[in-house]
Amino acid sequence: MTATRASGTNAVRYGTMKDNVLSVTAVMANGEVIRTGTRARKSSAGYDLTRLMVGSEGTLGIITEVALKLYGIPESIAAGVCPFPSVEACCNAAIQTIQLGVPVARIELVDDEHIKALNAYSKLSLKVTPTLFVEFHGTEAGTREQSETFGEIAESLGGGPFEWATKEEDRARLWQARHDAFWATKNLMPGKTEVFATDVCVPISRLAECVIETQRDLEEQNLYGPIIGHVGDGNFHVVLYCDPNDAAEVARVKAAYDRLIGRALNMDGTCTGEHGIGSGKIKYLEREHGPALAFMREIKRAFDPHNIMNPGKNASI
Amino acid sequence: MTATRASGTNAVRYGTMKDNVLSVTAVMANGEVIRTGTRARKSSAGYDLTRLMVGSEGTLGIITEVALKLYGIPESIAAGVCPFPSVEACCNAAIQTIQLGVPVARIELVDDEHIKALNAYSKLSLKVTPTLFVEFHGTEAGTREQSETFGEIAESLGGGPFEWATKEEDRARLWQARHDAFWATKNLMPGKTEVFATDVCVPISRLAECVIETQRDLEEQNLYGPIIGHVGDGNFHVVLYCDPNDAAEVARVKAAYDRLIGRALNMDGTCTGEHGIGSGKIKYLEREHGPALAFMREIKRAFDPHNIMNPGKNASI
Repeated sequence: MTATRASGTNAVRYGTMKDNVLSVTAVMANGEVIRTGTRARKSSAGYDLTRLMVGSEGTLGIITEVALKLYGIPESIAAGVCPFPSVEACCNAAIQTIQLGVPVARIELVDDEHIKALNAYSKLSLKVTPTLFVEFHGTEAGTREQSETFGEIAESLGGGPFEWATKEEDRARLWQARHDAFWATKNLMPGKTEVFATDVCVPISRLAECVIETQRDLEEQNLYGPIIGHVGDGNFHVVLYCDPNDAAEVARVKAAYDRLIGRALNMDGTCTGEHGIGSGKIKYLEREHGPALAFMREIKRAFDPHNIMNPGKNASI
Repeated sequence: MTATRASGTNAVRYGTMKDNVLSVTAVMANGEVIRTGTRARKSSAGYDLTRLMVGSEGTLGIITEVALKLYGIPESIAAGVCPFPSVEACCNAAIQTIQLGVPVARIELVDDEHIKALNAYSKLSLKVTPTLFVEFHGTEAGTREQSETFGEIAESLGGGPFEWATKEEDRARLWQARHDAFWATKNLMPGKTEVFATDVCVPISRLAECVIETQRDLEEQNLYGPIIGHVGDGNFHVVLYCDPNDAAEVARVKAAYDRLIGRALNMDGTCTGEHGIGSGKIKYLEREHGPALAFMREIKRAFDPHNIMNPGKNASI
């Protein structure tokens, strides 16, 4: 099993996955089985091997067990969709929501290209404009208050109306549409079967700028790249479609992908928020980490001197 | 600068310190200056050197800069003191509060020995019984709701009344008393100038059992060891006082200290929740980490082959 260090849509209220792993059991290159921590919620004993293993993509050892922190199902869940006049307004709404201390459970940016595709694929009639999908967890009074606060922030930024639902079937329909996003856009592009999913993450204060520059770049290059953003983290995915038989288009996509990562790194962000390095992003590690990369490789060499654990991936050489 | 991996009283709402460090800049043994991450809130690029450095106590490199996540000052803060009939009731109240999803900002167990000392030192008239000091952050309606929920939980466990304050001067007085705890107890024991502060952390489900067994042990040994617990994390401190000229008492304290750590490790806990290993707890590392300790030492050797960074501390040899 490999695991990335961060995942999905829940980072504001619940932290990222790595914050929720108490310990892992792993088989190491020398055959030793280690357990990296205890069931205590915190520890300062020795070095933090738990977080070192999480996201190492099988290059340091093979994780066979994981102990996680668990959360109760909240008493109340409120979820809704809120249209905004621009990507910038979406990002500002997310920033203001977090800065006010609203413990948002999910906050997702869906761009107008996606909304168009969702309307066609999921038979919806959403306004074609950058939109936030949000979810709040808490007590009944708490989720109502959070929803109202978010609605006021949206209105002050020219967004809304914010319609929210607490019934499970209404929420499920809403999130189903969000999760259909990939198939919805793919459906619109029948010949473009090659897909590059990007995964940059930038400081939230730079998110709007990064998304807008990326959209402008794609437009100039005549490329189709709808955007989904885990906007509470500053993380977004551009899904770049191209026709594998059109070598010029493939080259334009690869160049745009490369520029996007350069843009994120220039903004003090990362080339991958949650998908990991694998082999495709190894070339960006040095630019992102500079001299720190040599220390990652020292760890790899120390743990796996014969380079038998998922060689050629992540910080392996 | 050294830094432990976890700290203080805020772990439920805000996570531990290590969850709030975005990156560190450090000078390494070979003279390289590295930065372990970017300003992005999450990343899956390479290995997590940030959390490896946090809590390494200067043995892997010297941290010169830290980038932290920040939180706004909450709109409303409510804090209060709640007496309980037993340590077990205190622990159960903490567990139920967390399991209900109440995002408690601080929740501290203060045992009856401490309360006695605080009453004398800070001129208070608190009921002499195990007591929780708690604090809630949020909107005005939110902190009222959290306080009321906590009060109901306390009542159902035979505790209370729960008196809470939102005015800053009232809250400050309350926490001042909590922070006076060390001096208050020290004041009661004028001859006992040698102090051993313990720091075990256990799964919260085992906390009451661990505290009660420890109290029984101290009583049997005729030792004075008031207890303060960061009960939301399962972490507690026994402050063991002895007279340095009374060799038999010093030996009894050291033996009780050792048994306490054994008790925590048997409950799948850790010998140190937040204070770190230093030199005094090195002997417990092997028992806590087993074969994982060898991998910590591999990292130390790889990063600092001449053992010049804080040698003899933590996982150094």
